[in-house]
Amino acid sequence: MGPQRKIWGRSGATLYSAQSMQKVGGELALIQQIRRDSERRAGPGVSLGIGDDCAVLRPPRGHEVLVTTDFTLEGRHFRRDWHSPESAGHRTLARGLSDLAAMGARPLAAFLSLALPAATPQAWITRYFSGLRDLADRYQVPLAGGDTAQSPTENVLADIVLVGSAPRGTALRRSGARSGDLLYCTGSLGGAAGQLLSLQEVGRKRKDALGHPQLFPEPRGAVGEALRRRGVATACMDLSDGLSSDLRQLCDASQVAAVVELSKIPLHPWADGRMDLALNGGEDYELLFAARPGTRVPRRIAGVPITCIGCFTSPRGVPQVTQIKADGSKSEMPRGGWEHLRT
Amino acid sequence: MGPQRKIWGRSGATLYSAQSMQKVGGELALIQQIRRDSERRAGPGVSLGIGDDCAVLRPPRGHEVLVTTDFTLEGRHFRRDWHSPESAGHRTLARGLSDLAAMGARPLAAFLSLALPAATPQAWITRYFSGLRDLADRYQVPLAGGDTAQSPTENVLADIVLVGSAPRGTALRRSGARSGDLLYCTGSLGGAAGQLLSLQEVGRKRKDALGHPQLFPEPRGAVGEALRRRGVATACMDLSDGLSSDLRQLCDASQVAAVVELSKIPLHPWADGRMDLALNGGEDYELLFAARPGTRVPRRIAGVPITCIGCFTSPRGVPQVTQIKADGSKSEMPRGGWEHLRT
Repeated sequence: MGPQRKIWGRSGATLYSAQSMQKVGGELALIQQIRRDSERRAGPGVSLGIGDDCAVLRPPRGHEVLVTTDFTLEGRHFRRDWHSPESAGHRTLARGLSDLAAMGARPLAAFLSLALPAATPQAWITRYFSGLRDLADRYQVPLAGGDTAQSPTENVLADIVLVGSAPRGTALRRSGARSGDLLYCTGSLGGAAGQLLSLQEVGRKRKDALGHPQLFPEPRGAVGEALRRRGVATACMDLSDGLSSDLRQLCDASQVAAVVELSKIPLHPWADGRMDLALNGGEDYELLFAARPGTRVPRRIAGVPITCIGCFTSPRGVPQVTQIKADGSKSEMPRGGWEHLRT
Repeated sequence: MGPQRKIWGRSGATLYSAQSMQKVGGELALIQQIRRDSERRAGPGVSLGIGDDCAVLRPPRGHEVLVTTDFTLEGRHFRRDWHSPESAGHRTLARGLSDLAAMGARPLAAFLSLALPAATPQAWITRYFSGLRDLADRYQVPLAGGDTAQSPTENVLADIVLVGSAPRGTALRRSGARSGDLLYCTGSLGGAAGQLLSLQEVGRKRKDALGHPQLFPEPRGAVGEALRRRGVATACMDLSDGLSSDLRQLCDASQVAAVVELSKIPLHPWADGRMDLALNGGEDYELLFAARPGTRVPRRIAGVPITCIGCFTSPRGVPQVTQIKADGSKSEMPRGGWEHLRT
């Protein structure tokens, strides 16, 4: 609202208003830098980038267009005292890339709406974009537009939009799992929650050797694309909220029940043996997928380990998700309710 | 972040988490209602709506895809004491539709990221969606996904994404105006700012007969599409920040200068004769466009008056935007800096 000058408006898409950024950063150099970066990176799918009323995208012929949007709100999805600016930028983009990965789509372009408090240090902004850009570069996804505003509060507010494409009718959905299918996950679980617990401890010990699943989660784009291309998965989704919640979504969509063998779940070293973090922690951004029992599922795809952790059954007369413990006992898996930044 | 249940996840696109909404609304009825509404309204361009990791869109063959994102943040873009919930919902969607209109694109789908404070009354949410849906219905644009979260502050935070399409290479850009082209605007200007001033007055008189350009701005979708289809406009943009700012953007993009005859600018009755509101007020969401001097430009398009208010010239040795007053005097038009909700 109000006369926001759109100084990203010289050649390519939407509304990057200078006014709020000027107040924030004190100068236009950053925005101009971002815009130059974006122009240099514009992929073949972007006919018109930052600077007009809309961006114009050109998906490959015969492809459908996939769209996902995800908030990254300070105080809700990250905290400046726990997450470095690079981490906040990385996580903003990772959330959207993971949704595209879950459907086997290739990214065409990203759009960032970003509201910054007036007092945001220039260095924070620069480092935030650096984190976002590093991941964008690895995925070759151009930043083709967005919006900026001055935040009405002291919180950084980001909303990322990812647009991708996949050949018509091939996108992996949640709804294709059938009774008898096997249940797989990529990578290992519980690491994001485990590292977050560590960040919350004052005077924490650094364990850099374990990686940074909370600060720099790795979307499984190459795995998702391979699953789609090779016709391996009958259904797929990403693990953003935790297995106990997300698997129910997949069961709902496919109208099946699931049985999970807890002993087969690959725990991330950061989880430190805590199965509850793997089941309820969320934010691992691994993929959860179903495959027909006769399908040959590789043990690794794009270098990422693939593990069979259970199977799907008929939903009649059984709990939606059953867990089998190491001692063989069966019970309904409780739905996790643990929230990371609960306030 | 955290285990947000995605109860919009049963059949169609992205992340509508129930948890935050449950806290807010106390029940799931609203979300389920919105989802049912969205499913009923899904247009031919949406293959998969709310409920999966992404929505899947199917643009018409031979079309390009246009994308725009716009924040609507409480305290920055609206105030709950000035704007009714219906107005806030309407304005959220109108910002995006206006950007599509400016490029002559037809909407395919909208995506809403919405963060609500825990204490938001259920009635406010219902009325917000009612305002958004009324405009969506008139434009036949389905709500195909988005994200929800609990707001980390007391502010309602919305970000709207509009995806549209236009035949390849035909989208109206800001960059096509040439020296000698004439300058046109749709409708009348200054109304949104005029009504906002009135809303700010305590004990204000209602002037319903003048319409509600601030509360319920009307995007010019049919005009934009007609300008594109008929090949009338060489360049186009929407007036979101005010003529004095926006026209400079168009001049920048087209590398031309502009001359505006103030006496020709159609003032909205809400502007009450104040030219400054027309030049700097913003939020009128009318279209500003250029046409070759020989082109027959109708006086009305889709019922909306079209007015020639000036022309474009070579940018060499002249101010970027010159204004001619009623007495014939020429001067550089000052760039407006008036902000509606300046805090």
